[in-house]
Amino acid sequence: MINFQTSPDHYRHWKLQVSGSVATLSMDVQEDETLAEGYKLKLNSYDLGVDIELADAVQRLRFEHPEVRAVVITSLKPRIFCAGANIYMLGTSSHTFKVNFCKFTNETRCAIEDDSRHSGRRYIAALNGTASGGGYELAIACDEIYLVDDGNSAVSLPEVPLLGVLPGTGGLTRLVDKRKVRRDRADVFSTLAEGLKGKRAKEWGLIDDSFPTSKFQDSVNARVQEAVRISTPKAPGIKLNPLKVEESDDSRNYKYVKLNLEREQRYADLTIHGPGATPPTRLEEIEKLGDAYWPLRAYRELDDALLHLRVNEPLIGLVCLHTEGNAADVLAVDTTLANNRDHWLVREILAHMARVLRRLDLTAKSFFALVEPGSCFAGNLLELLLASDRSYMLNSPDAAQASVYVSALNGGELPMSNGLTRLLSRFLANPESVDEVLQHRGPLTTEEAERAGLITFAPDDLDWEDEIRVAIEERTSLSPDALTGMEASLRFAGPETMETKIYGRLTAWQNWIFQRPNAVGEKGALTNYGKPTQAQFDYKRT
Amino acid sequence: MINFQTSPDHYRHWKLQVSGSVATLSMDVQEDETLAEGYKLKLNSYDLGVDIELADAVQRLRFEHPEVRAVVITSLKPRIFCAGANIYMLGTSSHTFKVNFCKFTNETRCAIEDDSRHSGRRYIAALNGTASGGGYELAIACDEIYLVDDGNSAVSLPEVPLLGVLPGTGGLTRLVDKRKVRRDRADVFSTLAEGLKGKRAKEWGLIDDSFPTSKFQDSVNARVQEAVRISTPKAPGIKLNPLKVEESDDSRNYKYVKLNLEREQRYADLTIHGPGATPPTRLEEIEKLGDAYWPLRAYRELDDALLHLRVNEPLIGLVCLHTEGNAADVLAVDTTLANNRDHWLVREILAHMARVLRRLDLTAKSFFALVEPGSCFAGNLLELLLASDRSYMLNSPDAAQASVYVSALNGGELPMSNGLTRLLSRFLANPESVDEVLQHRGPLTTEEAERAGLITFAPDDLDWEDEIRVAIEERTSLSPDALTGMEASLRFAGPETMETKIYGRLTAWQNWIFQRPNAVGEKGALTNYGKPTQAQFDYKRT
Repeated sequence: MINFQTSPDHYRHWKLQVSGSVATLSMDVQEDETLAEGYKLKLNSYDLGVDIELADAVQRLRFEHPEVRAVVITSLKPRIFCAGANIYMLGTSSHTFKVNFCKFTNETRCAIEDDSRHSGRRYIAALNGTASGGGYELAIACDEIYLVDDGNSAVSLPEVPLLGVLPGTGGLTRLVDKRKVRRDRADVFSTLAEGLKGKRAKEWGLIDDSFPTSKFQDSVNARVQEAVRISTPKAPGIKLNPLKVEESDDSRNYKYVKLNLEREQRYADLTIHGPGATPPTRLEEIEKLGDAYWPLRAYRELDDALLHLRVNEPLIGLVCLHTEGNAADVLAVDTTLANNRDHWLVREILAHMARVLRRLDLTAKSFFALVEPGSCFAGNLLELLLASDRSYMLNSPDAAQASVYVSALNGGELPMSNGLTRLLSRFLANPESVDEVLQHRGPLTTEEAERAGLITFAPDDLDWEDEIRVAIEERTSLSPDALTGMEASLRFAGPETMETKIYGRLTAWQNWIFQRPNAVGEKGALTNYGKPTQAQFDYKRT
Repeated sequence: MINFQTSPDHYRHWKLQVSGSVATLSMDVQEDETLAEGYKLKLNSYDLGVDIELADAVQRLRFEHPEVRAVVITSLKPRIFCAGANIYMLGTSSHTFKVNFCKFTNETRCAIEDDSRHSGRRYIAALNGTASGGGYELAIACDEIYLVDDGNSAVSLPEVPLLGVLPGTGGLTRLVDKRKVRRDRADVFSTLAEGLKGKRAKEWGLIDDSFPTSKFQDSVNARVQEAVRISTPKAPGIKLNPLKVEESDDSRNYKYVKLNLEREQRYADLTIHGPGATPPTRLEEIEKLGDAYWPLRAYRELDDALLHLRVNEPLIGLVCLHTEGNAADVLAVDTTLANNRDHWLVREILAHMARVLRRLDLTAKSFFALVEPGSCFAGNLLELLLASDRSYMLNSPDAAQASVYVSALNGGELPMSNGLTRLLSRFLANPESVDEVLQHRGPLTTEEAERAGLITFAPDDLDWEDEIRVAIEERTSLSPDALTGMEASLRFAGPETMETKIYGRLTAWQNWIFQRPNAVGEKGALTNYGKPTQAQFDYKRT
């Protein structure tokens, strides 16, 4: 089982060093410390374990070190920054694992950009040696890229010429859409196994500058000092403690999140509990609570549960989302967050919630939201319902009623990858509905929620159990691949962003190529990499 | 060999009837008239041959019947509008063919939308029976959809539940992005094999209205009369005659377009010749020339050559684009077209050129433009260079010089699928360069073109031959699949449209699913459709 929790004390491949307003993240991959057998992580190449540490470091900086304004990403290995994803690891992994690996590493790079955009931390890639493949893709996720000019070091995307696959971590999209490299130059660069060095790399916009070895450190430092000139009030930060989780064969229980697996039927029940006690309203109380504060803790738990489901439970095809608790408490949290959205910690908490919800949007499993009496699909938790492929709400006018609630957070703090709120994405046909829904105060009954377009089906008491059972059975009987493609197509209507391009277009092409015989067949390029045998292609163009 | 040329006299599956300002396109597929062996086109299901006729009809209407303002698409079969792409044809086709088949049918549907958008013809789908799968996808490409309410007829996308693949012709994207169906409803609809009938289909926005059988014809007619109320001056139209082509084993020569295949090296030389004589400047002359007018004829020939390369020459991986002729003549054509862009025929010619260039953008082969003395990469033909993955321009300051030229048409009349001009897509990093280039008068020498960012490489006389030879060898040695994915990613930077979503995101997912064992494996759903055996899935979610 792959564990997504770690902390700097446990890092094996990265060193995180914080000095005043500058953090340095140094890659020093230990070649034998792999997640699986059968490969060595030479030349700072990485597997999922290396990236889990990087993701943790980026997250931790935001909460534990708000004083940091610039993050330098560099390597402790001489002459090599990073050789990208380990080819032998890819060659020996299942298709499912490869796809999930790429998705996670994409999310880590998007998290770097999210930090830069929302919290203004400047990421500086200090390439003290060659950055190839995923190594250059990590650099290109940073705000600035500096390459040592030692006559040898280059940046490259050798996947197409050497491996017959695509750069899997957003490289092609970021080349033309982020760095806006001219497409013909991007074409040349992406087919050039050896890549480009300092002068031409700069001229083509692949890096921001290059410096001779003797001046590299000083030049990067000067750039870092520039980036941290805008000083910010020093805040102490809060500690992200390890999540506590009780595991059994078919369950995973955190404090606020409970996951129950119905393996035979290939679905899971995932329940998020509300705060459970009156949540604090003052910033000092929140800072004191730190990572015990409900919206941070609950969403960290949800994040871990989603990652667990993705990687460790591939046979679970459907997740039924439930909530339990007092809607008023959830709404009180939202009010506090909305009122203090300019405070650094609240901003980080909101950005984290948004990232976790996007992780859900991008999870290749079906989600059904089930709204029953006692649930609290309110405000931020209503986003779970809006993120679901469908929602079912019990219609029981005579007994205890189910309700859903809207809060200010549904109006913009928790955007999807396409840049829109989930409400706007839902009501593209009638955007005026968004305002109507947002202006609603108090509970929406089943009838009101249905009229407002928030739920898909509203079975009554008599039908509820049967209808849900049949819906689950039907969903889990369908082709898992067709569902993945269908959901990826239906979840992101409206505008596209670099992020949706990466997860939608690029990922789909990569998935395609990752199972083509020309890549993974007996004679494929990925299979034969590093072997005395040569790849042999079926040259039919598709 | 598949022939893409046809005309109404030769249609086997469609009837095209024009009466005043209304055209009726009736589908009546002959089940034995298939393009290949092994399947029957029952229930108005289609193969590529059926769609070639539809594409011809849509194109022909624009040129031959400018008086038509509304096009009714319906069926001559009782109780069935269209059952979509033939499953047995898909089941017995190669992956490469399936992908190219879907691309062409997508282009035909986009051509319908292009006609509606640019020439204002209203497309009305009169569903006199069930429209399932590709049948509903054809309807959703129309402006309006009316369904007979006979207690039986439905619209449906049964691909996911029945076949384990995606609707392959833009259906999912158009559901949520064109008709803006709520995503949870789109989810339900796309997993419901039997689809939805009149009332709910209308409520969910899948159709515009439904009428009982007895009133169906009258109600549709009333809608058609509404659509044609805005009368336009009657123009006589021009005839699209069959293209003449001389074929040999390794060449295909039209009047203005010559295609030479280097099969051993897996590349082709494609040369477009300029007008060859001083082109006309007056509208009457152009109308009189009709389809002999250079920009129409040359681009029709180019279109046919591209389709031929795609479907009949899958092993050709690279196309070297050449032009030959007098740049002044090409520029004179552009001036005439730009000055008369509001005239119906000129508008149609420009829209056609734009569609052909987009066909090139979307062709899964590499394109290199080669600029030498005697070439005429000028104005509209410069778009070929801008559409190429790379361009090489001979640098021979002492001898006859190569030049390229810009015209008004490069400024907006020939947009890519992403809605931008190719110049804007090229210069996303420095959009001010676009204006600079557009303002340039006269020839751009190699040096000037290189400085302006128009070309990739400028080898001199001594290096030219070797450099081109090596570039061709290198390109054609790479994995054809990796190149397809890379080119699809690099060609469309910048904004996304419904069209780029369909060709980029949806197509890539479809391609992926089209080779998953769950679809096409021995136990896959597509393989087992209509057989007594049942599909068996590997339920791992990817």
